[in-house]
Amino acid sequence: MFFEGSEKKVEIKVAAGSPSLRSLGRPFWQDIVACANAEILSHISNDECDAYLLSESSLFVWDDEFLMLTCGTTTLADAALSFIEQYGIEKVGFVCYQRKNEYLSHLQSSSFDEDLFRLREKLTGKAYRIGHLDSHHHYVFCTDAPCEGLGEEKTSELLMYHIRGEAADYLRSDKQTAEGVRRLLELESLLPDFEFDDFLFEPFGYSVNGVSGDRYMTIHITPQENSSYVSFETNLDLGQYPQPIFARLLQILNPGSWDVIGFNVERDTQGYPSHLCLGSCTLESDQGYSIEFSHFQQTCHEVLIPEQM
Amino acid sequence: MFFEGSEKKVEIKVAAGSPSLRSLGRPFWQDIVACANAEILSHISNDECDAYLLSESSLFVWDDEFLMLTCGTTTLADAALSFIEQYGIEKVGFVCYQRKNEYLSHLQSSSFDEDLFRLREKLTGKAYRIGHLDSHHHYVFCTDAPCEGLGEEKTSELLMYHIRGEAADYLRSDKQTAEGVRRLLELESLLPDFEFDDFLFEPFGYSVNGVSGDRYMTIHITPQENSSYVSFETNLDLGQYPQPIFARLLQILNPGSWDVIGFNVERDTQGYPSHLCLGSCTLESDQGYSIEFSHFQQTCHEVLIPEQM
Repeated sequence: MFFEGSEKKVEIKVAAGSPSLRSLGRPFWQDIVACANAEILSHISNDECDAYLLSESSLFVWDDEFLMLTCGTTTLADAALSFIEQYGIEKVGFVCYQRKNEYLSHLQSSSFDEDLFRLREKLTGKAYRIGHLDSHHHYVFCTDAPCEGLGEEKTSELLMYHIRGEAADYLRSDKQTAEGVRRLLELESLLPDFEFDDFLFEPFGYSVNGVSGDRYMTIHITPQENSSYVSFETNLDLGQYPQPIFARLLQILNPGSWDVIGFNVERDTQGYPSHLCLGSCTLESDQGYSIEFSHFQQTCHEVLIPEQM
Repeated sequence: MFFEGSEKKVEIKVAAGSPSLRSLGRPFWQDIVACANAEILSHISNDECDAYLLSESSLFVWDDEFLMLTCGTTTLADAALSFIEQYGIEKVGFVCYQRKNEYLSHLQSSSFDEDLFRLREKLTGKAYRIGHLDSHHHYVFCTDAPCEGLGEEKTSELLMYHIRGEAADYLRSDKQTAEGVRRLLELESLLPDFEFDDFLFEPFGYSVNGVSGDRYMTIHITPQENSSYVSFETNLDLGQYPQPIFARLLQILNPGSWDVIGFNVERDTQGYPSHLCLGSCTLESDQGYSIEFSHFQQTCHEVLIPEQM
């Protein structure tokens, strides 16, 4: 029953004056998604953004930028490289490729090193591992050509491992419904201005995309006992947002450990459950943006249950 | 400069009345070691035990039992299966195969699952993973046929990650000598009755075997920055031993995190540096022995240094 919930992520901004990415149309994006071994399940749109829900996570497309997240054993680097080849490398302004902390990296079809080697055949940039290899760690590669606006854009990611308690039980049960999960996550009250598109997988697992103007949010739930993972990500400015979204999700899902990754955001742990920050770091780029990573764990000592194999 | 210091370990006891393992002679053991892709560097002997220092860790051979530890990308399951085939499965009393927490499991030539599949073609037994996949975890497989004396034999393993400070600096320097490392580890005073056999690797890395009667100890040091690992293992009854060996090694090497695995031993954290026990568990077997696992971390928050790739 193992499923690798943790995502690979690529964000690509186009150079000023390049053709609109939205105008490329659904068949184009369908092909890009297929390169990652995923498929489009449904989509919602507003005036600024097309949000595709995928069989493995999400794709958001704006006129000048797209963001794709894929989990499982998908091959996101293939999708990124295919996009670059088809769209034209001279029209690409900025690329950021990430791999989040994986439970079983040896089951992936490639390592970050291998992805990096292929990306660097086309792109120049800096790559880092943040966090120890034997603890939660994340990989990030970003191109280093100048690109406007990188210092202003805010992205916040909350990555939760080992969810526990009533919500976790519900998410593992055969009684759950998409509406029930939305209610459990308090989506309507936490994100009142958003339009949502969600999907409940069999036998369990849940994904939701939300858009409001040019703002997006997405949640992906892999509830499997012993390897559960829930991610939340948004470009909302959470520091200015009236709802304590991270704190509330942590209270509801009660993860044993979690990571926070922020682009151009301050660390704010108000309302978090009692925790230790086992490690953190801030990475400042030459292009004016900063990446912040923190790894948290609940303070309680855990009686481990041996897993029979 | 990455090297996987963490070991695979196999312990095999022969059935009562079987031929002495020591009498099989060095060429036999050389072949077994070669099956794991390792080689014998040197050896010491006393009346009860032959201790071989390997290019990747250690082999201890008694008349009725052997213990082999190998690190790097060695193939210890091959060595275990070759031994069983050559010695005769009907003369094998007990087999225990372990894999300790690895930094980069995707670089190993097999996963524990794959090793397990092959071992189970010859042996029946129970296997467990202890610890979460995204934290320190260990794999253990033990045969379940009755075997005498399993409840009395004590083994204590201390596995240290991310050593820091003066000792770590010395172990990474080009000034170190085998004598200097022995002095640093206080081997003569902590283990006064032992005869030692050690080896300093190029550019660094250190291994030592020690024997005293039927008691053994072994230490292996992989000092590489960002992926350092030091293991200590012995069949001394540390609860009755006058020297606080674990506490002293922790003080000297100052690891950021460490695991303790004990067979038939009580957990005793006296003298440990200020720490959190992030998780622990005790596994009781039908054959009367118990396995105890605990994962510790120093209490200080760590400012992580991004590793450029």
